[in-house]
Amino acid sequence: MEKKKDTHKNAETKPASKLVSRRPFPGSEKVYLPGSLFPIQVPMRRINLVDTVTIAGGQREQTPNAPVYVYDTSGPYTDPKAEIDLHKGLPDVRSAWIERRGDAERLPRMTSEYGNARQNDKSLDHLRFEHLRKPYRAKAGRQLTQMYYARKGIITEEMEYVAIRENQNAEAAGIRSHITPEFVREEIAKGRAMIPANINHLECEPMIIGRNFLTKINTNIGNSATSSGIEEEVEKAVWSCRWGGDTLMDLSTGSHIHETREWIIRNCPVPVGTVPVYQALEKVGGKAEALTWELFRDTLVEQCEQGVDYFTIHAGLLLEHIPHAKKRLTGIVSRGGSIMAKWCQYHQRENFIYTHFDEICRIVARYDTALSLGDGLRPGSIHDANDAAQFGELETIGKLAQRAWEHNVQVLIEGPGHVPMHKIKENMDKQLVDCKEAPFYTLGPLVTDIAPGYDHITSAIGASLIGWYGTAMLCYVTPKEHLGLPEKEDVRTGIITYKIAAHAADLAKRHPGAEIRDDAMSKARYEFRWKDQFNLALDPDRAVEYFNNREGASADGSRFCTMCGPNFCAMRISQDLDKGHCLDEYDIAK
Amino acid sequence: MEKKKDTHKNAETKPASKLVSRRPFPGSEKVYLPGSLFPIQVPMRRINLVDTVTIAGGQREQTPNAPVYVYDTSGPYTDPKAEIDLHKGLPDVRSAWIERRGDAERLPRMTSEYGNARQNDKSLDHLRFEHLRKPYRAKAGRQLTQMYYARKGIITEEMEYVAIRENQNAEAAGIRSHITPEFVREEIAKGRAMIPANINHLECEPMIIGRNFLTKINTNIGNSATSSGIEEEVEKAVWSCRWGGDTLMDLSTGSHIHETREWIIRNCPVPVGTVPVYQALEKVGGKAEALTWELFRDTLVEQCEQGVDYFTIHAGLLLEHIPHAKKRLTGIVSRGGSIMAKWCQYHQRENFIYTHFDEICRIVARYDTALSLGDGLRPGSIHDANDAAQFGELETIGKLAQRAWEHNVQVLIEGPGHVPMHKIKENMDKQLVDCKEAPFYTLGPLVTDIAPGYDHITSAIGASLIGWYGTAMLCYVTPKEHLGLPEKEDVRTGIITYKIAAHAADLAKRHPGAEIRDDAMSKARYEFRWKDQFNLALDPDRAVEYFNNREGASADGSRFCTMCGPNFCAMRISQDLDKGHCLDEYDIAK
Repeated sequence: MEKKKDTHKNAETKPASKLVSRRPFPGSEKVYLPGSLFPIQVPMRRINLVDTVTIAGGQREQTPNAPVYVYDTSGPYTDPKAEIDLHKGLPDVRSAWIERRGDAERLPRMTSEYGNARQNDKSLDHLRFEHLRKPYRAKAGRQLTQMYYARKGIITEEMEYVAIRENQNAEAAGIRSHITPEFVREEIAKGRAMIPANINHLECEPMIIGRNFLTKINTNIGNSATSSGIEEEVEKAVWSCRWGGDTLMDLSTGSHIHETREWIIRNCPVPVGTVPVYQALEKVGGKAEALTWELFRDTLVEQCEQGVDYFTIHAGLLLEHIPHAKKRLTGIVSRGGSIMAKWCQYHQRENFIYTHFDEICRIVARYDTALSLGDGLRPGSIHDANDAAQFGELETIGKLAQRAWEHNVQVLIEGPGHVPMHKIKENMDKQLVDCKEAPFYTLGPLVTDIAPGYDHITSAIGASLIGWYGTAMLCYVTPKEHLGLPEKEDVRTGIITYKIAAHAADLAKRHPGAEIRDDAMSKARYEFRWKDQFNLALDPDRAVEYFNNREGASADGSRFCTMCGPNFCAMRISQDLDKGHCLDEYDIAK
Repeated sequence: MEKKKDTHKNAETKPASKLVSRRPFPGSEKVYLPGSLFPIQVPMRRINLVDTVTIAGGQREQTPNAPVYVYDTSGPYTDPKAEIDLHKGLPDVRSAWIERRGDAERLPRMTSEYGNARQNDKSLDHLRFEHLRKPYRAKAGRQLTQMYYARKGIITEEMEYVAIRENQNAEAAGIRSHITPEFVREEIAKGRAMIPANINHLECEPMIIGRNFLTKINTNIGNSATSSGIEEEVEKAVWSCRWGGDTLMDLSTGSHIHETREWIIRNCPVPVGTVPVYQALEKVGGKAEALTWELFRDTLVEQCEQGVDYFTIHAGLLLEHIPHAKKRLTGIVSRGGSIMAKWCQYHQRENFIYTHFDEICRIVARYDTALSLGDGLRPGSIHDANDAAQFGELETIGKLAQRAWEHNVQVLIEGPGHVPMHKIKENMDKQLVDCKEAPFYTLGPLVTDIAPGYDHITSAIGASLIGWYGTAMLCYVTPKEHLGLPEKEDVRTGIITYKIAAHAADLAKRHPGAEIRDDAMSKARYEFRWKDQFNLALDPDRAVEYFNNREGASADGSRFCTMCGPNFCAMRISQDLDKGHCLDEYDIAK
């Protein structure tokens, strides 16, 4: 009955470099800050502001405004000096660090059977990324995860990198922050934070996920069986980084997953996560009951050797939980969760991801791929929030997190879902206790079910709250949630919405320096420095677009705007009451 | 230097009835519920759902789904049986009630000097609403506000009306609610709730604002000196009601304010609020210092006699507060606040709205126009939140609320503004104490300043929180906030965003029956009843649009969608695990 549709328009072509978004941000410079422990270069975006010009008593005065440093996930793409060639991939940031530490070796080829077969398949040559590296893996008897180093008291390049990255904003403004490389090390050693950084993702600019750091956001891309090709996916990845995605999950379920992922990782400056069971399921023709541990194991190795930084695995969903889910209004809404539930039920056996958990830890530890313990039983409706299925699984996940730590494997804990506001805090509190403060990574949560088409908003409300309560990373939701796959503009809207949620959480947590950008914006607003307002905005393009399209737009820099008109501009009247006029001399971009 | 632009394209024409939005909501019926105390007819929207069809063991079963009743602000416009003629205005709902109570009399003409002059000005004939009524006013020695009746132990038609309106959703589902006509009366008597219902707004479908009722939203329309005409404003009002605006503020500051307002009120099924100082300022050519009490007084009478249901007045802003505002990053951002501050500072005299407060109460009490005590010193930035200026004014406002109640005048308290999440609760707690539980009515608050173009979202986050904490009405914000005036699509986006915030708050407050619509949506989602999902959505048009535009859209009602593809549909897999298939037999609208 199902009609097969092949809409892989671009699936058979390699991506062209000219197609990725590269325009630098307006009024901004890419700057690189050196480390003091290591020869590292940490990218930041510096927004340069114009002077404040005041006229008081006929005197014209000009006062400079300090530049604002902002965390920059966009990678080399927004650096006009960087050469970008998608066919070569981004510059190698990390191999010198890995080599210095001496715990890894290069393998002669992939050790995954499937990975090797794909790489030797001539029929895929026209699709294949051209500059494949030989994979790194821990030497026999050696360990190399960031958690291992942290527990040994060793500060790595990655740790200093993230400390500078988290801090620059505050430091430039003279605000003391608690975040030092040593603090980073301690948080990782405790499992309270993690740096997803597979030793095979050399292009990755390290970042940290933990509740004592800036709140992060994840975005999802991926072609499903009915949509886009490689070129489109690579541009989506670049686009996601541009607008502020801190990590990127490739949820592809179509054909050429292996090849598409290679292109994405090689060109992605942020950590890449996957849900390996999706690819495993494709390998068995979509039949959950045909999955085997061996096939899953090989898929993990394949992806570790390509450089996937973290895996979502649904290890916490047990046979005993499934009857709870049957009492629900919306059953199981996690794709991975439903696949594993089907497998368990069909075979009447315990989830193989659970039964092989220690072996999984031993595998991923060799590459420092982190585990994101997926909540296969997250609630899919307000009705099902905080129920026995969800919380039963969370308790299991908490125990697994501790087992992963025994292997020095870094861990994230995934959370809901759909939860009304008054039930959100219980999720966070329980997660902190059950999972011993391992970083929480939630999808929203959506605080109501009745607004399809606006679920980026219903979920951003829940995300802001749970971020404030302590969630370390928020998985974005786009306006198309529940209705279709997001297109580029939906991705942008979803990301900006989640940057708002994450930043609102950082303000509420009083993260050092979080308010600097707000204050700079508000000062620019009060002084009618319109261009500075645009440049400081999370989405400068949108702000300029709305401003220029307003009715009666004037290009003469008047000290009022069309919202209130000349006589009703509160800020102008207030300024006049105050210290004298501010002048907007800067012509307004048209 | 200021260029005069006249863009009043339509200012010189009367509105045409065919231009207003009338399309009924899909899958919905307008129903009218009778009162048991009074011969009233309370409109609701009933969303009819299709049956659930299951196939288990080859057996086909059909189970009906109960219809869902939703609160309906759209007025007669969405009733296909209603005749709409903008030139005649909406049907008179309330005069029989007012006549029955016998406390009001018809005046031979407006008693406002300005109002009279406008009505007698032949040059305005071509603009004037055609069926002007003679205004009602309390008879000498009589009182007639809802608060007066409530305190006397009298239940009015308005009180039973709102009790039915608030309850129908729960009652139809067999859920007991605390909301009875007597409960409504008690809440109004205590000042904890209010029904904005000027005796001259006979077209108004009564609604209640209070924290033990459904959370309401207000929308703003209004041409500023640089924009739209009468026709456009009337359609904006209808449009606002359509999408769910519970009250409407007409913030017009251009020419023909008097005439535009008449058209709006006569055609508006929801309470209308204004900021009378805007019109007063227009009358003195935009010079704040030229304002006088006498002029302001006449403006109040003019608007009371037209039927304005509530006035925002900035009575709490005192001379002594102004120095606090000078310490701010963004000074005064309220238009009304800045006008009054300028007047106070220029004359070095106390705010005349404050000094004449008792007289104002005596005026508005004769029409049952409510007072919305404006926060002229609300913070305009994260930096200025919860400061001495804001809280000093709030304390003054609290005292004024009690004075208004001595006159049996109904009161709302306006609140911020820009407030980071961790400072929101303090606002609500302080308001409840200082203002003795008078209903709070906030603008957002915006939880960050850095997202111009997305301030409907930054503010909906704060609005959801403060609504949960107890705010009774949320003033919407559109995506154009800080950048320009909203157009129709922005109004729709702003309203839906605020319906989300209000509903999320109602869920979190566990308002009786609030979850019914969520559960109906989730059940429809789990059963692939797509049309029911669209019809239950806050914005059915948007949901259908996104669904139909998805890539690979199929019109054959397949049990999966393009998000995950056939093999990865969690709900389908989960259903299969469960009790058997649900069938979506309903062809998907294309």
